[in-house]
Amino acid sequence: MNHLLTSSDLSCNEILTILEDAKDFQDRKEWKPDRQMFVANLFFEPSTRTKCSFEVAERKLGLSIIPFETNTSSVVKGETLYDTVKTLESIGVNAIVIRHEKESYYDELVGKINIPIINGGDGCGHHPTQSLLDLFTIQQQFGTFKGLKVAIIGDIKHSRVARSNADTLIRLGAEVVFSGPENWFDKEVVKDCSYEPIDHAVATSDVVMLLRIQHERHGDDGTFTVENYHHKYGLTVEREKNMKPTSIIMHPAPVNRNVEIADELVECEKSRIFKQMENGVYIRMAVLKRALEIKGGWLQNDHQKRKPIYI
Amino acid sequence: MNHLLTSSDLSCNEILTILEDAKDFQDRKEWKPDRQMFVANLFFEPSTRTKCSFEVAERKLGLSIIPFETNTSSVVKGETLYDTVKTLESIGVNAIVIRHEKESYYDELVGKINIPIINGGDGCGHHPTQSLLDLFTIQQQFGTFKGLKVAIIGDIKHSRVARSNADTLIRLGAEVVFSGPENWFDKEVVKDCSYEPIDHAVATSDVVMLLRIQHERHGDDGTFTVENYHHKYGLTVEREKNMKPTSIIMHPAPVNRNVEIADELVECEKSRIFKQMENGVYIRMAVLKRALEIKGGWLQNDHQKRKPIYI
Amino acid sequence: MNHLLTSSDLSCNEILTILEDAKDFQDRKEWKPDRQMFVANLFFEPSTRTKCSFEVAERKLGLSIIPFETNTSSVVKGETLYDTVKTLESIGVNAIVIRHEKESYYDELVGKINIPIINGGDGCGHHPTQSLLDLFTIQQQFGTFKGLKVAIIGDIKHSRVARSNADTLIRLGAEVVFSGPENWFDKEVVKDCSYEPIDHAVATSDVVMLLRIQHERHGDDGTFTVENYHHKYGLTVEREKNMKPTSIIMHPAPVNRNVEIADELVECEKSRIFKQMENGVYIRMAVLKRALEIKGGWLQNDHQKRKPIYI
Repeated sequence: MNHLLTSSDLSCNEILTILEDAKDFQDRKEWKPDRQMFVANLFFEPSTRTKCSFEVAERKLGLSIIPFETNTSSVVKGETLYDTVKTLESIGVNAIVIRHEKESYYDELVGKINIPIINGGDGCGHHPTQSLLDLFTIQQQFGTFKGLKVAIIGDIKHSRVARSNADTLIRLGAEVVFSGPENWFDKEVVKDCSYEPIDHAVATSDVVMLLRIQHERHGDDGTFTVENYHHKYGLTVEREKNMKPTSIIMHPAPVNRNVEIADELVECEKSRIFKQMENGVYIRMAVLKRALEIKGGWLQNDHQKRKPIYI
Repeated sequence: MNHLLTSSDLSCNEILTILEDAKDFQDRKEWKPDRQMFVANLFFEPSTRTKCSFEVAERKLGLSIIPFETNTSSVVKGETLYDTVKTLESIGVNAIVIRHEKESYYDELVGKINIPIINGGDGCGHHPTQSLLDLFTIQQQFGTFKGLKVAIIGDIKHSRVARSNADTLIRLGAEVVFSGPENWFDKEVVKDCSYEPIDHAVATSDVVMLLRIQHERHGDDGTFTVENYHHKYGLTVEREKNMKPTSIIMHPAPVNRNVEIADELVECEKSRIFKQMENGVYIRMAVLKRALEIKGGWLQNDHQKRKPIYI
Repeated sequence: MNHLLTSSDLSCNEILTILEDAKDFQDRKEWKPDRQMFVANLFFEPSTRTKCSFEVAERKLGLSIIPFETNTSSVVKGETLYDTVKTLESIGVNAIVIRHEKESYYDELVGKINIPIINGGDGCGHHPTQSLLDLFTIQQQFGTFKGLKVAIIGDIKHSRVARSNADTLIRLGAEVVFSGPENWFDKEVVKDCSYEPIDHAVATSDVVMLLRIQHERHGDDGTFTVENYHHKYGLTVEREKNMKPTSIIMHPAPVNRNVEIADELVECEKSRIFKQMENGVYIRMAVLKRALEIKGGWLQNDHQKRKPIYI
């Protein structure tokens, strides 16, 4: 069962295969199942980018998509996640994308569900397709990960991307440093990475990866004010001027403009923020292909050529 | 106009035809309209199974589906059900599936609307596609209805399935008994059926059909506590051991685990609960075919042969 | 970039071209892009007619539709309209339909977004596809606009249709008068139009166009009571009897029955209210075609015949 739960579960070879497939999709190669296949996207938390990106990817692969709105489903009658997913499996869904506020929600599903689960984000846990699209964007720019220095800056503790990205980037040969408020830095979360002050990190890295301030996950601990953040830890116009000429800016979005990054830098030449979103579609196509092709539903040679459809 | 409002409206022959068509769909026979046809699913009450099942069925038939979310529609501006449905008819929708909290909501539509209405559940009234999928599941198991004993157990008064199922099962030759809290038994609702104590009903029936406790429909009359229900009226592990070797367990779901049925029995060998969900897709395909083919949109003879659609 | 923001932006020739294309679509002419194209419908206000009508139109054109629910999107995390639209552009959406409660919401998008925006209604501002379908319905009936007298009756101040319709009708050669509560008449809004008492307007016009009382936009200024409105300014059964034999009744809907119009007149012989809805589909197909064909994705002659679409 080709679940995709965390990027840490993936070997380097598996990651590189997904990136190659994403490149193929970017180059307009076509892969479609030879029969009707169904997916459902279960988003228990708000999302624009991830959900819409999966929706585009699924349609590009010719999949049939079963709409699922959590607030009008039997979830409001108290139905469990397991029963909901089992129901979708029973009615013929071939793969399922889930975003859930509960960390490791998939633990109650794996081994009991017979369709692949693609994790679209679990609480403060993981967000593997975001990690993969980040890797794809870096590879697109630099061709390799070896020898690159990547600075991950910001809300490391609440980010489902920070840990996954640090882990995979290091495995792929990059150096990863963290920056931002030092008290948000958690050596446990980010072993093998050191902390660097923001100005140094920005000036010396090939990739300046900003993390979203998770307003919605921060409690009222009073340690954080938006007003100071930008000045002390954000990518200001001044800091950007000190970046290396070949370096790039990344952010998983949605961006808090003038908090993590100055408004006028969001679409600057170095920014790959909207490019990341485009790349997310190719990554999700690759991840869906990986989930579904094991079922034998994909064309693999000339004998299985699709016939035209007249409607 | 081939509405499907209640299963009681259907003759035995009509029911058997629908079950045959469902069997064909299960056997992967293909029926698709020869032109683009539109359906809309109007669910004014939460649903996972019924809504998603219709969505799969519609896509398997190649229908175009117009999404309709009641909470973002003009219904919130006070538009009536009639005007909403008339609007959908006007813009080209060919059939409409409706779930509504109001019993017999369709009375204000029938005769004034020129497209078939498929009832996806009306208040405490009817739920014909659920009844039909229950019949299909029983037929699948036993080949016939004649001579079978079916026990319907639980919240008979609030169930839109109990009455329909009792009526149709009796017409098709089965014996139906009710069980559960005796004060929930309403002789009016279930004429031609007798009440049996739970232990006897479970031990002697071919089909043990549990009904969902409709928490959301029960008032605060204080006659019901979840804690006692399972012990007194639920399918406990002990009771299951007394079932006949060939008998099966059914439940329309969502299940309240450890209330109507012990958690570990939900997917036991005798359980057809998730099989019912699978069967629901075939039944809904058959019901949609029935609704649409009368409009001439379906091929009926060799001259009108549909070209095969390869997906 | 073929945005459609207001009908006033359109020249008479552009309007007539759209009406011709709509006529073609009504006559079942087919136009489909020769590759997969994506649209998204962003409705920040409730809608049945407009949203569902676009959904039908898009499916008739074979477009792939990315579902977007504002209440489960990152908009709830505070993401701006610009960032939301830019995201959709980045993931491959080719055109976007937007309804927003903010008048001229599109001002912050135009010039910065590289995909066409189709305005599905902006606050009390404009609603160009409604205007166009009104024009189409009038043209369908009378063949021309020249010499027609059109009475627009009701909530002129809060109507996004009144101004646009008055402007375009006059440019196309019709005479436009307003009626309804005189204190709702705003000479600024409706220059080149005069006010007429309701009985005279109804009795002398070719088109009696009623506007919806925008309960949801009216404050508590106490100047309005539903009870009196129908009698004083509504199309009563008595007033309808004085209409010219060839004249027609229009209303953008949803109708407040027995307020703007007597219940029994909504579907009377003169009424084009549900016809308007049907026509809306053809207009929206034409408008989408206009938005998309400039991108080269549409066939324009025999050499560009649509290649079969392989799915």
